[in-house]
This record gives sequence, C-alpha cells and structure tokens, in this order.
Amino acid sequence: MGLMRSWVESANAAECPFPLNNLPCGVFTHGEGEPRCGMAIGDRVLDVTGLEEAGLLGLDGGPLLDVPFWNEVMAAGPEVWAALREQVTLALAEGSRFRAQVEPHLLPLSEVELHMPFLVAEYTDFYAGRHHAFNVGTMFRGPENALPPNWLHIPIGYNGRASSVVVSGTAVRRPWGQIKRPDDATPRFAPSARFDIELEIGAVVGVPSEHGQPVTVAEADAMIFGYVLLNDWSARDIQAWEYQPLGPFQSKATATSISPWIVMKAALEPFRVATPPREVPLLPHLQEPGPMLYDIALEVALTPEGGAETVISRTSYAEMYYSAAQQLAHHTTSGCAMNTGDLLGSGTISGPTRDSRGSLLELSWGGKEPFPVDGGSRSFIADHDTLTLRGSCKGDGYRIGFGACVGQVLPALANPYERN
Amino acid sequence: MGLMRSWVESANAAECPFPLNNLPCGVFTHGEGEPRCGMAIGDRVLDVTGLEEAGLLGLDGGPLLDVPFWNEVMAAGPEVWAALREQVTLALAEGSRFRAQVEPHLLPLSEVELHMPFLVAEYTDFYAGRHHAFNVGTMFRGPENALPPNWLHIPIGYNGRASSVVVSGTAVRRPWGQIKRPDDATPRFAPSARFDIELEIGAVVGVPSEHGQPVTVAEADAMIFGYVLLNDWSARDIQAWEYQPLGPFQSKATATSISPWIVMKAALEPFRVATPPREVPLLPHLQEPGPMLYDIALEVALTPEGGAETVISRTSYAEMYYSAAQQLAHHTTSGCAMNTGDLLGSGTISGPTRDSRGSLLELSWGGKEPFPVDGGSRSFIADHDTLTLRGSCKGDGYRIGFGACVGQVLPALANPYERN
Repeated sequence: MGLMRSWVESANAAECPFPLNNLPCGVFTHGEGEPRCGMAIGDRVLDVTGLEEAGLLGLDGGPLLDVPFWNEVMAAGPEVWAALREQVTLALAEGSRFRAQVEPHLLPLSEVELHMPFLVAEYTDFYAGRHHAFNVGTMFRGPENALPPNWLHIPIGYNGRASSVVVSGTAVRRPWGQIKRPDDATPRFAPSARFDIELEIGAVVGVPSEHGQPVTVAEADAMIFGYVLLNDWSARDIQAWEYQPLGPFQSKATATSISPWIVMKAALEPFRVATPPREVPLLPHLQEPGPMLYDIALEVALTPEGGAETVISRTSYAEMYYSAAQQLAHHTTSGCAMNTGDLLGSGTISGPTRDSRGSLLELSWGGKEPFPVDGGSRSFIADHDTLTLRGSCKGDGYRIGFGACVGQVLPALANPYERN
Repeated sequence: MGLMRSWVESANAAECPFPLNNLPCGVFTHGEGEPRCGMAIGDRVLDVTGLEEAGLLGLDGGPLLDVPFWNEVMAAGPEVWAALREQVTLALAEGSRFRAQVEPHLLPLSEVELHMPFLVAEYTDFYAGRHHAFNVGTMFRGPENALPPNWLHIPIGYNGRASSVVVSGTAVRRPWGQIKRPDDATPRFAPSARFDIELEIGAVVGVPSEHGQPVTVAEADAMIFGYVLLNDWSARDIQAWEYQPLGPFQSKATATSISPWIVMKAALEPFRVATPPREVPLLPHLQEPGPMLYDIALEVALTPEGGAETVISRTSYAEMYYSAAQQLAHHTTSGCAMNTGDLLGSGTISGPTRDSRGSLLELSWGGKEPFPVDGGSRSFIADHDTLTLRGSCKGDGYRIGFGACVGQVLPALANPYERN
C-alpha cells in the first residue's frame, strides 16, 4: 500500500509522520477550551469530538468521543475502530465531498496542547528484549549467566504503577530513594545519581478480558487497540538495592512517559514482522499464530540544557523476542482480568550493536564507558537534560509516526519532605 | 473506652463484631435493588445511602453516598470521615431521638448480599512480616541467608494487579500457569498443584498524594481511610519459576480476596500498638512517629467440602515489622502518586510459632510436613476447600470485627482455551 492522499496537503509530504494512512488518536486543548479527542493529519489535528457532535461521525453505541480520553472507543472493539477509520478516511481523502463540512474541525497542531490520550487502568512492564536482557544480565552476572532460566520460556514482566504514567512534555523530577552503593556499609536516603531511560513501545489494551479466562495469543492480538512510544524512567541505584527478591518498585515509579498519540493497530498492519527464531521452543499457548511485531524504527536523543541534540541510539521494535500479543496472552494465563486502558510496556528495546542500545545503563556499560553528547559526555542523565524518543514506520512513499516522547529531567527536591 | 450502647440491641452483645464502636463500611444489595452503601450495626446493615437521600445525613461536598462504592467518602478526607461517624453514632446511640426516622433504613444482614466496598485504584503487596520472611527465606536459602539484605531497611513490596481483587464469597478457580518442577528438564503448562493463601491486612488509601511529592510516615497514616482482611491467593509452583528477577506476577494474579467491610481507622484507634523494636535503625524518613500497627487477632480456617472447619492458624497483625503507614510513606519516596482506592497488602502475617503461620507454604513447611484438617491432611489447597480469614480487636466489653474473608477454590478449567 502506498500513500493515501488527503486534501490536507501537508499530510501528503513523504516525511510527514501523520499521513491519511496513520490517523493516530490523541487528546488536545486549544486555547481555553475543554480537552477533546483528536486525530493528527499532516500539520493539523482533526477535532473528532466536534465531528461527532456535528453528526459527521456516527459510531455504534455512540457518542463515544464526548469524553476527553479514548477509552470508550477503545472498549467498543474492532468493528467500531474500523468504522471510525473508514469514516475519517472518507472525510479527509483527496476529493472528499465532505471537505467543506469537515474543514472547520481542523486546527493547527502548532496551536494545541496535547494531553494523556487515554486513562491508564493498570500498567505492566515486560523485559522481552533479548539484547537488553543479555546486556544487563552480563553486567550483573557475567555473560554465561546473563539470561534468567525462565527468560526463553515466558515473557517475564512485573506490574508497574499506572499513577506514574504521564504524557510527553511532562517534566520529570529526579527522585530520591534508598540507595546502598557497593562500598557503603549501610544504605542512605539520597537523590538518584544513576537516573536512566528505557526505550520501549507500549501496547494499549482496548477490549477487556474476563476474570478467570485466559486468552490465546491470537485473541490477545485482537484485544490491542494500538501502540505508543514509552519511556520507562529508571533509577538504577535505587533499583539495585530494592529489586531482590520482589522486583523493581520505587526505582520505576517516578514517571513513565508516553507519546501523545496512540497509533492504531490498523495503521501498523503493513509493517508486521515475526519475532526472531526461537532459541528453545515455546509451549503451545505462547506460540505466535502469525507475525505480531512491527518494524518500527526507533531513536533516542539527548539534549543538554542550552546544547544541541545528540542521537544516542537507533534500533527497531522488530528486535524484541516477544510480541505484545504474547505478553498479553501470558498476562492472562492465571485468570488475570485485563481491562480497557491497560498499558503493556514492551521492555527495553536494544539492538545487537553498541549504538542500538535502549538505555543509558547499556550505552555507558554501567557507567564505565561514558558516551559523548554535545558539550561533554554522559553515563546517566544530568539535571536539565531532555530525553526524546522517536519512532516511525517507513512505508512506500509515506511514514507512520508516533510524535516524539519527550521529557526534561529537573533537579531533585532539596528536601522532599519540606512543605511550603 | 468501653462499649458504646445502641438501640439496635444485637449490637450490644459482647461477642458482636459490629457494635456502635465499629461502624464498618460496605456495599450491599437487598433483593432486586441497586447496590447501596451501608454500615454494619449488630445483625443489621444501616442503609447510609438511604439516610443521605432522606436528608438524615449531611456530609460536606455531598451527596457522597449516591454511588455504590465508598471512594467519594474516602477521598473527602478525615473531617468528613469524622462527621460521618459522629452523625451515624448520634443516630444509632441508645436513647437517640432520631430512632424513629432511622429505623426504616435498617435491614437484616442475613437478607443482603455484600459487594466490593470500594473501587480498587491500584494494588500493592508488601512482604513486611518478619516471621514470614524468615520462614520463606529459610526454606529457599537457609536460615543464615533467610532475610534479603534490604529487608530490615525498607518495607519491600511489589505492585500487584487491582483487577484481581474480589470480595469475600467470590469463588476462586485454581489457575493454570507455567511450572518447572525441580526435576523437570523443561517447563510445562499445567494447573497449579501448590495453590496457597496469604493471611494479610489491607490498608485502604483515602486521601491521595501529589505526583512528585513524597509523604512522611505521619502524613501517610493520615491518608489511610481504613483496613480490610486480605487473602493474597498464591500459586507457589508458578511463583517459583517466574519470580526471578522481576518478582511475583501471574502467581499472584488469580485473585485477591478482601473482607466485605472496611473498618475505619477511627474504630481501630484504641488498639494501636507500636511495631516491634528495630533490629537495625531505620533511616529517618521511615521512622514511626507513634504507634501505627493495630492489635488485630487473626485466624485462618480450612473447610473441606462437606467437612468441618479446622482453624489452622492464629496470629495478630501486631506481629508485623512495618506498619501500613511506613509502607505507604516508602511507596511515595520516588514521587509515586497515591490515589483514593489504592490498596496496600501488609504481607503475610505469621507469628513466631508453628500454629501462627499465615500461609500453607509455612504451615506445611514447603509441603514436607502436612498438617491435619477434617478428614485428612493438607500441604496446599485441595479442590473445593473453603478458606476463611477472620479478624477482630478485643476491647473492654466489645469487639471490632471485619466480617469473614471467605473463598472456595474451584477445580482448574479442563482446557483454559476452550470456548463455548
């Protein structure tokens, strides 16, 4: 499939992240207005809440867009998702007879503020990148014992904290935490000195599953509404002290940033790829019935305050060992109910080479090999650094973009318990 | 403080779990009616939703009880909680001039069905029982290395799955999961053969905290609305295979049962006790400014299908090494926002003796020492067994009860992926 042309001319440029093929879902405000649902098209946002109000969009069970989040559409299921895309595509396609009615519902993207696109029900973070798990395991346990014994058999993950999820652009304050460095006799309470990012893709659950009822990988794939970029901010020094035996907790609870746009699964269809060959066979309930990863090119950039941006990593979501569908199926094996708005982080996406690593921990090899950035070098994040994740799929004459996932790190509070 | 007498005569009996001193919060249906908020008094439930509708209860910011959950009251804060108790106490006290107006809003407890008393926002489970951690650590690593190095410094915990939380009385189906027994070459997908309970107390967060702002232990204590009994059902064989390095996941996601009544903090005030002496000093931000545990007597009973009940454990919440306030304060150190409806499991409450252990894993010492029950013995739960947790505080001439937290275990699905 090639570019689908739109009468919104900016959407037809080869490098535009938001052609008619994409139609990602976000929430915006314009001036003093209330937050509304929108879809990006070229350099505009289409006010789909306004379109529905005006009777130009009709969805089964609607209105579904009269709330400032996409959860109602997400819960409505694949037929409604398809109907939405079909109607909006008809409205925006080159030569559309609806142009005159629709055009008043377009706003310049440069004039709107973007908000969380959906209400996060619960958040789970996985550890499903083969290169990342190998790199981190090698640093901690040596290359022979790098992979935990269960790693090739289940997409291991842990429950994260939904209340930590914020939209791109939200500043992230360096956390305090309990830290015990290797040569400390006792732990101290201090700001994290090894604050990091994790480059991930988040899968957004649309259709819920029933409590007590596991779902197959194919059913799981059908439940997913779309994908976001996700930065799982991680305090490595807090993590090292706390994570045994119950897993990461406060080290991962400061913030988790997501891109402002959910790219619907339909927009990613042309970019489906299979997970890599299995190193050991998976049990049948976790086997993929078809290609369920996507070839999403990803990059991480670091910008010191007042400095220039350096791209510090380039990789692809296709590097993952497990797909989101496999993770979601695993998540239900015990009968765990999944709900609309559940967010599943892929795990850090690192490629096989040094310049394709998805965390600063790996890029600096635990701080031993600082990497260059504008005006200096980094092992971990410095105060006022801005970290930017970008992702896109390259089609035939078009791109599918997610919008950037950006966060600036603010200095730790001087005294976290002082109140004004 | 002694018994506060009520004109509801059954509430004045010395062994009644619901005297006027208690007034726990639940949600009930009567016949075909809609779910409503109620407070238990003697053998009755007071329909406080009805009381508010009738203008007999006035809360700042109200109506707060026109929804079938307590979250709006919980979010309203300590002054509203106190006003609620004061007004209901006035209405139900012996000699109350409101009796005639209030009496029509009482229903027999035996005629109502109880539901989830609040909407769970997120669920966190801790590991804060000294005896439990020592027992489990001894089984896995030997007595010298029983406690993880961080255990005496932070109340370690992991995020659980809010969608798994169910009210007492909900049947629990034995889960499937990936299991690798010690002598297996590869894992298998099978029903759990080591399904277990964990006896816990759950703290229910009322007042939210701000993202980015840690709270002190005293502030955390003030945020807590009340407490429930909590059974953290655990599949030990699934847990053993999955939990390294990211912590428990599917082994804890089948179900978490809570008592139908939230006992408000005010009812527990006379039973406050301090945590045990510290074995190593805590860092200042985790130190208790006053007694923050409660002396809640607890017991676990197991009833085989068609058999008689055996009490298999008796212990007290006062055995915990960390209080819920310390856990909640720790939960915010990284800036993690806590929300109304967050539920914090204490961790398994085991006492120092064999008959005070809070899990079957400990009671049967990993399955090596089966314990007697009616008609046989158990190492782990058998199909159709009913597990019952009970808890109460013994005051001067009265008791504060939680209602039982009950769950029957159903056999695993024959084929979890078969659909009708």
